[in-house]
Amino acid sequence: MGIRRGAAVADPGYADDKQAVLRRLSRIEGQVRGISGMVEDDRYCIDVLAQISAATRALQAVALQLLDEHLAHCVVNAVRVGGDEQSEKLREASEAIGRLVRS
Amino acid sequence: MGIRRGAAVADPGYADDKQAVLRRLSRIEGQVRGISGMVEDDRYCIDVLAQISAATRALQAVALQLLDEHLAHCVVNAVRVGGDEQSEKLREASEAIGRLVRS
Amino acid sequence: MGIRRGAAVADPGYADDKQAVLRRLSRIEGQVRGISGMVEDDRYCIDVLAQISAATRALQAVALQLLDEHLAHCVVNAVRVGGDEQSEKLREASEAIGRLVRS
Amino acid sequence: MGIRRGAAVADPGYADDKQAVLRRLSRIEGQVRGISGMVEDDRYCIDVLAQISAATRALQAVALQLLDEHLAHCVVNAVRVGGDEQSEKLREASEAIGRLVRS
Repeated sequence: MGIRRGAAVADPGYADDKQAVLRRLSRIEGQVRGISGMVEDDRYCIDVLAQISAATRALQAVALQLLDEHLAHCVVNAVRVGGDEQSEKLREASEAIGRLVRS
Repeated sequence: MGIRRGAAVADPGYADDKQAVLRRLSRIEGQVRGISGMVEDDRYCIDVLAQISAATRALQAVALQLLDEHLAHCVVNAVRVGGDEQSEKLREASEAIGRLVRS
Repeated sequence: MGIRRGAAVADPGYADDKQAVLRRLSRIEGQVRGISGMVEDDRYCIDVLAQISAATRALQAVALQLLDEHLAHCVVNAVRVGGDEQSEKLREASEAIGRLVRS
Repeated sequence: MGIRRGAAVADPGYADDKQAVLRRLSRIEGQVRGISGMVEDDRYCIDVLAQISAATRALQAVALQLLDEHLAHCVVNAVRVGGDEQSEKLREASEAIGRLVRS
């Protein structure tokens, strides 16, 4: 239910926690920059891999937070509307969960 | 076998492909910055999630590349040395693979 | 909304596709038995690993199917009831998704 | 180094732990049969999903054990032989790790 849905439904599901999500993403961006620094400095492969695993888990945690909020807001609203809106939002959520599980 | 092992064995396993690894990491950093931009702009949750899945897969691909090179260089060298060096490197590689599989 | 909720809401979300889910699980049980047979026969590790990856993906596919049906039935019904029922079902779904993503 | 390599190198990497691997696989087969039983009994979707996550993690743990033993035996032997044998075994191990990470 993001902005592409028009002005009447302008807020995405994560609107309340937007600042928290942005802080987490900014920390992950720093982690990735830190990994580049380790590679620049010829740091030991295994130590670089440990940091990549940490960044991957942090990204998945943000995804799970966004998905929670999406279910609690966008999907819940779509169920109240019912019909095609409900089917469409459930299908989208399923696909997003599938991508997360496989990535 | 990174720099922490001393000057005699100064190159990590990814030495030959260092520039390629750095380019991939720089692209991932850009992806994460792009995701922050999407959140700033209140973009639709599902679209944000798709980009997070893409960044996660890109991080895992870099990890697999580093791990390949680690096996082909550091682990192979350790096997030639044998003994504790071999056991230690195999144990480390196993732990790194376990972290990747679970992240 | 399984049987533990009492006779009035006795059907789980996957009621319609129960036979399809059972067939998929039976196939996965056969895959795992086949992997045991490969190990019994001292088959090559890499070939055994390929079959384990296939069985893992098949389990995840069943999980995604069950989750889809859970969202489309149990969660949708809970949203219509609203209140604590809705919050509880959303929380449960989030936890299940988190376990799938991390497993 | 499985049987397909001929009588001279007949033992797979997991030869020493074969019984332990078989016990783990037999337990997983039981888990999958238990999940079928839950579906037969119309058990709650979320409880079924929790058991699927547990079985998935158990399969990944067997895979990591087999991979450890493959690295410690087959890959180590291949490195001692060197040349094509080494390259081939490293390539195979990388592919198997990639499949595990993505599954």
